[in-house]
Amino acid sequence: MIGRLNHVALAVPDLAAASAFYRDTMGGRVSEAQALPVHGVTVAFVDLPNTRVELMEPLGEGSPVAAFLAKNQAGGMHHICYEVPDIYAARAQLVASGMRILGDGEPKPGAHGNPVLFLHPKDGFGTLIELEEVR
Amino acid sequence: MIGRLNHVALAVPDLAAASAFYRDTMGGRVSEAQALPVHGVTVAFVDLPNTRVELMEPLGEGSPVAAFLAKNQAGGMHHICYEVPDIYAARAQLVASGMRILGDGEPKPGAHGNPVLFLHPKDGFGTLIELEEVR
Repeated sequence: MIGRLNHVALAVPDLAAASAFYRDTMGGRVSEAQALPVHGVTVAFVDLPNTRVELMEPLGEGSPVAAFLAKNQAGGMHHICYEVPDIYAARAQLVASGMRILGDGEPKPGAHGNPVLFLHPKDGFGTLIELEEVR
Repeated sequence: MIGRLNHVALAVPDLAAASAFYRDTMGGRVSEAQALPVHGVTVAFVDLPNTRVELMEPLGEGSPVAAFLAKNQAGGMHHICYEVPDIYAARAQLVASGMRILGDGEPKPGAHGNPVLFLHPKDGFGTLIELEEVR
């Protein structure tokens, strides 16, 4: 079922500072910051040769990242995203195995426009797992 | 400086159960468990088309993963490992930027035999960053 690692998402309290760290200190290639109001985050991507690291800063009221940063004030590793070829087939297989899908269980357009869903972190051994359909 | 994402490491309280989850529920290719007493962990790798996810369970007294699991009993995202072409050049650049290297600051042989070092998580925006020399 799972294919490529699409990205690893790191929550950071200060996106400009984290982008500067990854660009200037770590020597990575970092994209411009992009506000995603629907998702409640502003993001920038560190483009690595084989995958991407998503730096996420909370945006607006009720950002899903704000609660995480309240508990982890310096920032931290937020989720990991695996690609699947068919999000509905993936969901069916997961639900049949007793996994819980977050929210109403329906795939939603993710940050890249592709449908995504999140597993309950307790079902992923404490790791928040995102699945993104990439055909 | 940083190149490929070498691996993402997830701490898990039960490696056999986590391996079964990634193999049977997630449909991934999971390696046999491998005890690394020097590193205080037993590991298995989920081999993805573009990178690897390392599942780590504590092994023996004083495992570096035990304290993490005491705080995160279900498990969680432990560190992210980037490849660098020259670990000493990377260290010099990091130290010049004021970054703190964990331990005595000397690169050590990592789980794959290559020299590695870890940055202080506070310097990596709350994320524990491993650098591994891959020439």
